[in-house]
Parts: sequence; C-alpha cells; structure tokens
Amino acid sequence: MLQNTSEIRVRYQETDAMGIAYHGNYLTWFEIARINLLDTLGIPYRELEKQGYLLPVLEAQARYFLPSHFDERLQITCMIAEMPRVKIRIEYIVTREEKRLTNGYTLHAFMDRNGCAIKPPDCFISALKPHFMQSS
Amino acid sequence: MLQNTSEIRVRYQETDAMGIAYHGNYLTWFEIARINLLDTLGIPYRELEKQGYLLPVLEAQARYFLPSHFDERLQITCMIAEMPRVKIRIEYIVTREEKRLTNGYTLHAFMDRNGCAIKPPDCFISALKPHFMQSS
Amino acid sequence: MLQNTSEIRVRYQETDAMGIAYHGNYLTWFEIARINLLDTLGIPYRELEKQGYLLPVLEAQARYFLPSHFDERLQITCMIAEMPRVKIRIEYIVTREEKRLTNGYTLHAFMDRNGCAIKPPDCFISALKPHFMQSS
Amino acid sequence: MLQNTSEIRVRYQETDAMGIAYHGNYLTWFEIARINLLDTLGIPYRELEKQGYLLPVLEAQARYFLPSHFDERLQITCMIAEMPRVKIRIEYIVTREEKRLTNGYTLHAFMDRNGCAIKPPDCFISALKPHFMQSS
Repeated sequence: MLQNTSEIRVRYQETDAMGIAYHGNYLTWFEIARINLLDTLGIPYRELEKQGYLLPVLEAQARYFLPSHFDERLQITCMIAEMPRVKIRIEYIVTREEKRLTNGYTLHAFMDRNGCAIKPPDCFISALKPHFMQSS
Repeated sequence: MLQNTSEIRVRYQETDAMGIAYHGNYLTWFEIARINLLDTLGIPYRELEKQGYLLPVLEAQARYFLPSHFDERLQITCMIAEMPRVKIRIEYIVTREEKRLTNGYTLHAFMDRNGCAIKPPDCFISALKPHFMQSS
Repeated sequence: MLQNTSEIRVRYQETDAMGIAYHGNYLTWFEIARINLLDTLGIPYRELEKQGYLLPVLEAQARYFLPSHFDERLQITCMIAEMPRVKIRIEYIVTREEKRLTNGYTLHAFMDRNGCAIKPPDCFISALKPHFMQSS
Repeated sequence: MLQNTSEIRVRYQETDAMGIAYHGNYLTWFEIARINLLDTLGIPYRELEKQGYLLPVLEAQARYFLPSHFDERLQITCMIAEMPRVKIRIEYIVTREEKRLTNGYTLHAFMDRNGCAIKPPDCFISALKPHFMQSS
C-alpha cells in the first residue's frame, strides 16, 4: 500500500452561500493530494507530462459526511491500495482534527497527447512496486 | 420520471493545461442542470433557501468517457428516476452533438440552516408527485 | 465603437460565505462577454487560437459598487472604445435590472504559442475597422 | 509599513488551455496573502467575520508581466503602505525565484452583515498603528 497526507487550508474563494466549502472543491483537493503522492514516489506529475504522459480522471466520487468552512485546515490522505494494472485507483479521506469529513476515489489511466490510452511509464511501475511486494 | 436538459458553453476559465475542461467543473454543470430542474418544477432553489431549506450534496460521482473543450456547447440532461423518500437521487448525462461525454449522479437531503436533516417541504412533494403517478 | 451585451446567471458555485458572488468571478464573466464580442465580429477566439494567435490578459481591473447573488441574471456589456493599435483595451459594465454593479477593463496583446508578442491577424483588423471609421 | 509573504503552489485546476495559470486566480492568491497578513496582525479574518465585520473587495487590479505554470511555487508579497483611514489599500507582488510575475492591489472597506459601511474595529486600528508610527 502507498499512502500520504497533505494539508490544505480552506480559501474564502472555496466557500459558498451555505457558508461551507463548495462540494466541487474536494475534487481539486484530491488532486493536490495525488500530486503530492506522485512527488513522494519520485515521479512528479509535471515530469510525466513533459515526457508525454497524461493521467486524466476517468471517474471521480466523493461522499460528504460533514462540511468544512473557511480557514479550516484539512488533511487529505490519499492511498493506492492495490498495485495498479491498466487503471489506477486512488482513494481519499478528508479529515479535520481526526474527524472524517469526506471520502472518495478517482480512477485514472495513462494517455498520450492524442488521447490514446498507453501503458504506464516504466519509472512509474518501478517506483510503485516496492510498495506492493508480496511474500508468496 | 422527471427530466430536463440545460445547455452550457465551456468557458476558457474552465479549461486546464491538458486543453480540456477540468473534470471538477462537471459537478458545477450538474448543479446548473439541477437548478433548472427545480425551476421547471415551479420551486426555484433560491426560494427554498429563503424558506430555510438547504439541499446539500451528500454524494457525487462522475464518469468521464470523452473530454470537452473550450467553447463547446454541451447538453446536461438531468433526471429524477424514482420518487424520492428521504434522499433525493439525481442522475446526469452530459452530451455534445448526441455523443455521451460524461454521466454521473448526486445524492441530496434537505437540511435546515443548522445542518439538521429535515423533511422535504410540502411544495416539493406535491410538485414531484404528478411525475411519478402509478397506475396500480 | 464596438459593443455588445451578454447575460449570465450567477451559479451557486460562484457564491461565497458572504452570500454574494465572489469578486474574482467577474473576471470570468468579463471573459464570457469578450468571447461573445469576438463572435459577433466573426472571428471566434477558438479560431484565433487554432491559427496560433493567443490573446492573453496583460492587465485587469474591476470596481465593485453593488454585490450580486445566487441565481440573479446579470448583463455584461463590453466595449472597445478606440481602434486598438498594439494593445487592445476592452471595457465592461455589469448591470442587474439597469443598476450598475461593477465596471472594469482588461488589456490584451496578441501572442504566439511561444509567448512572443505578435501583430494582430489581418482578419481581426479588417473586422474591427468598420466600427471605428472616421470621416476625417 | 506592514508586509508579509505567502507561498502558493499552482494547482492543475488553476491552469487553462494556454498551459498557464488562469489570470483570475491571482485574485484568489491575493486573498490568501491578505488572510495571512491579518493573521500576523493577530486579527484573523474568520474572527472579524464572527464579530460581524466583513471586509469586501471594492476594487481589484492585476498587471501580468510573466505567466506561471502548473506546480510552480510562487511568492505573494502583500503590503499596506499607508495607515488606512476609511478605505484599506493592499498591494501585492507575485514572484517566482525573484522574478516579478504580477503585481496588483485591492481596495477594501469594513461593512456589516447588512452591507452598510462601518468603522474598522478598534482591534484592527490598534494592531495596525505600531507599523505606521511616525517620529514627528
């Protein structure tokens, strides 16, 4: 398993007239956590793009249990639970002071600049592998 | 069943560095369709809020099949397939020239200003009912 | 002089915790008006970009007199008051039921994909000219 | 004079189809710097709002010299150059590795929840004063 936690602080721009963070922003926060996860793997997303690898979102889901508000600091924990094959599934939990606010997942696949599905780059596979080693 | 279709035009602000509309914007577009659906029911959301009824998002999902681009006109069709009880499930299909780009759903429940779950207002129930009449 | 008016409807996503539309959104609404202005000139921005002409924002200003709120319909009038030479200055007035809410301007120059300043395309000049003809 | 510097990292969501950060986001980044400035004064904006003081934007301007891109870390320096009387003018410079990308300002006034202009709270005045003490 691969996991890391990022922190964001809710911007005023991210609030809405209900006085809470607009639900769509959580997808942006998921993205921040995901970018950091790739950083810790040593394969920053900006480098992947430079080499012609895009990692678009195929599917995204969020479930909202508790709202967040302006200026709150939130932790976004993001995990890859299983060694990805074709599709990469990433899961997220958003918490504030240990309370779970939201969870969700995104599903991705590597594509080239023409929008064609391509194999993950070798560097991605080799960076991930050690996290999913099995004893068998 | 209750259904209607809204049209949006992709804003430059909504694009990202992949040259496509950022995936998070679809949740905003779902919202536009939902607001229009309530309008056609004769119970505009702004009126519901004035009466103290909020309709927050409990869950949202989107699946992306094809991307959209700056300046494209997209149709967002939104449906309530079953008469809601406690939770209201709304489904969405985003199309461009009859091609399906995205589908998704959101789940909602009525809440008051204090964040407590409350029963849907009577006007909501009576406006919806005729669309789900059954012969039995 | 060249002028036209676009209408937008304030999205819930565009509101903030003050219960009004977030001030930054006006720049996006200016953009919508600007895109429509180019459409009426017969030179859609998407076509300009396809031909390698970008029209980035060099400067933007907005002055806020009255706020706008969720679901309000706003008119964004946008004007080019003088035949542009190197830089293109566009002015905006946002109104709601004849009341002025905001005004502002943006300043632009044509650039190529490498970020180098370039001359406006001929089609742009010839489309603009008739609006600024003078009797001398 | 009062001054401090915040750092942001450009989100993918903040980029646009030109491959650069959308110009409207700088207003959000100005806001982040402003919120931090109030924090360092010991009067967090969230506290001001709780006490009924809103600080809406009356005017905003940005001038763009160089673009920023996904994943870049930018410094937003924000200054109050003169002791504010009725209106509060805040200036901003956005830099990346010592290069100036953007500058701008915002103008604010305190308002109550009804949108009426009100005097700044005493705590605001007393927190600011030491930074503008003069010898004369």
